[in-house]
Amino acid sequence: MILEVAILDVKPGSAEEFEAAFKTASTIIASMSGYVSHELQRCLETTNRYILLVRWQQLEDHTVGFRQSSEYQEWRSLLHHFYDPFPTVEHYESILFNSGSEFCP
Amino acid sequence: MILEVAILDVKPGSAEEFEAAFKTASTIIASMSGYVSHELQRCLETTNRYILLVRWQQLEDHTVGFRQSSEYQEWRSLLHHFYDPFPTVEHYESILFNSGSEFCP
Repeated sequence: MILEVAILDVKPGSAEEFEAAFKTASTIIASMSGYVSHELQRCLETTNRYILLVRWQQLEDHTVGFRQSSEYQEWRSLLHHFYDPFPTVEHYESILFNSGSEFCP
Repeated sequence: MILEVAILDVKPGSAEEFEAAFKTASTIIASMSGYVSHELQRCLETTNRYILLVRWQQLEDHTVGFRQSSEYQEWRSLLHHFYDPFPTVEHYESILFNSGSEFCP
């Protein structure tokens, strides 16, 4: 299991439009092979900042399967023009997970 | 529900010791009021980088309840000396969550 992390700074005034576009784009990523889950969260401290967390079965499900797909072109055209600066994407692997209350986000 | 996010860069050569200390510290944070879950993940692209994701019922469970507790002093003494630079912590609230396969991390 791999966690894709991207901090997304969107252009001032475009937050509402970005969120609507992201909901449309969500159906694209959720249909990909190796996709597990994703969430978009909005920052309380920094205006127009979001975090995208996507869980993939394997790294290559994102870096190859998704990024080299025709679906990625749709994702890109829906979302990439909102970002300033363009985000850095990193991947993480789990060291420790603890759910004190059996929570599923 | 609030997501606390911290990107943690630990000093070169201290990753193994940090992970062991974090496992000890985990019992502290998991005992706090308003705690929901936490996970520590290690970055694949950037050496010595981790992400800490903590879910709290409310913002104040972290910013007041935890940070002003005696338990936080233990957490700090276990972990803070590993970080360089000292991390920025941000809080996020959910816009969208989708689990394609009913996954609980």
